[in-house]
Amino acid sequence: MTTLEQKKQLTRWFSDLQTRICTALETLEAEAVPPQESTPPPGMFERKTWTRPNISPDQDGGGGTMALLKGRVFEKAGVNVSTVYGEFPPQFASEIPGTGENPNFWASGVSLVIHPLNPFIPAIHMNTRHIVTSQSWFGGGTDLTPTFEFIEDTTDFHQALKLVCDKHNADYYPRFKSWCDEYFYLPHRKEPRGIGGIFYDNLSSGPTEEDFENDFTFTRDVGEAFLTIYPALVRRHMNKPWTKEDKQRQLIKRGRYVEFNLLYDRGTRFGLKTDGNVDAILMSLPPEVNWP
Amino acid sequence: MTTLEQKKQLTRWFSDLQTRICTALETLEAEAVPPQESTPPPGMFERKTWTRPNISPDQDGGGGTMALLKGRVFEKAGVNVSTVYGEFPPQFASEIPGTGENPNFWASGVSLVIHPLNPFIPAIHMNTRHIVTSQSWFGGGTDLTPTFEFIEDTTDFHQALKLVCDKHNADYYPRFKSWCDEYFYLPHRKEPRGIGGIFYDNLSSGPTEEDFENDFTFTRDVGEAFLTIYPALVRRHMNKPWTKEDKQRQLIKRGRYVEFNLLYDRGTRFGLKTDGNVDAILMSLPPEVNWP
Repeated sequence: MTTLEQKKQLTRWFSDLQTRICTALETLEAEAVPPQESTPPPGMFERKTWTRPNISPDQDGGGGTMALLKGRVFEKAGVNVSTVYGEFPPQFASEIPGTGENPNFWASGVSLVIHPLNPFIPAIHMNTRHIVTSQSWFGGGTDLTPTFEFIEDTTDFHQALKLVCDKHNADYYPRFKSWCDEYFYLPHRKEPRGIGGIFYDNLSSGPTEEDFENDFTFTRDVGEAFLTIYPALVRRHMNKPWTKEDKQRQLIKRGRYVEFNLLYDRGTRFGLKTDGNVDAILMSLPPEVNWP
Repeated sequence: MTTLEQKKQLTRWFSDLQTRICTALETLEAEAVPPQESTPPPGMFERKTWTRPNISPDQDGGGGTMALLKGRVFEKAGVNVSTVYGEFPPQFASEIPGTGENPNFWASGVSLVIHPLNPFIPAIHMNTRHIVTSQSWFGGGTDLTPTFEFIEDTTDFHQALKLVCDKHNADYYPRFKSWCDEYFYLPHRKEPRGIGGIFYDNLSSGPTEEDFENDFTFTRDVGEAFLTIYPALVRRHMNKPWTKEDKQRQLIKRGRYVEFNLLYDRGTRFGLKTDGNVDAILMSLPPEVNWP
């Protein structure tokens, strides 16, 4: 079972990752020469902390920090960390492994969604988390949603994730890639949300400290891969001009993103139905969307 | 049980109502002097028919007609009629009255959602339908979603619906008004979708032809009330100028509309999960939306 020391390591890592991602995105904001007529100043993250209601008079329920940037490269970038604990509501406990006898949980993670202004820059989602019930496991992944698909981006994104996976286990990449394709799919549109990536859940190699270290290292590597590959993709497109039609196509593509998140995304629906922080949960929704 | 002759009356009425609503909205388009800098020409409805896949080689599954207007008063107005029949998929049959022994159904109705350009004009939804399984019943209602609430509009809208209800049954208005308030509510936001109206379902006064006539007359009266009250509300506001801030407030309010329809609306979720016509179902989504 995850020790107190390990929990501290986890929250420290998720918090550090949030800081490093915010810095990386602010660097891109500063570096870009956006092709708009009037160039706004580089965007900076604004941070807001929130707390969950107390579980009992002498126990708090945890909370988190939302970081939100509205800039000239990223129309809306939200990077959230949270560490929450308490008891799962009875109606949801049944859906969560290891809650049979004891509904107590502890969960910590980082989650981001980035909606770039320039329609040639792909949108991206990344999340890594550690959950403790009477079992404990890691979950997470990252997937890319371009409006205009550039084969080189798709290849490089998948390649970066394959490298990370292969370092740990030859089975990971094919399994986590298929899982991602299955998960981020809109059945009513019969179309995928984007070009995929990896998705994993219930990752627990075993009960020892070494097993924890292995799985934690994998999760850290996913975070590092994001920090390497996404800025590289952004730099390829961030100074490209676009037309009104290009932008319109992006606004329509974003509609699909909203449909997925509100109709199917387990995290979104779960969070909203368990009194999660609405602003943090819905930070994933795009700033401007069209359903013509 | 609904006879073939009654089914014909129903589809004729729903189709006539669609035509009359389209004409009423086109009249407003022509009449308005919108306060925008460049006045576009009045919008006209475009109609598109669709068919459901055949149930068997020699039985079709019905279909419908979508009418869509993008104009200078109504940024997006969709008025759909459909008559569909076949068998409910097993996983949904259990949710529908009268499908215990026989999953066959027949359903006909009209459904509209109007998103005005001018943020001072309220958005509106109206739907009336008749459903036949081993039972048969009417359902429907209408509710108003202003961005800026004008008390006079709220009063007159509710008053118009109360008149219709009271003509038929003194219980209807209080019951159907509360039902509407309960249904069009966003629990995660702890706020209503709009200012309400009426909502009714499973309306069946009894098995006789006279009972059918009574319920059908009530449903027709709801349609007539819409045709009277909504154009009156539109005329109050359609030539008012608005600011960028007013518009922004409307775009954010529309986000709540999307959240409701995709997270909670039974018709939307049901339609999408039973292979309904995606374009017709999602015609309710606003043309432009912001989640800042």
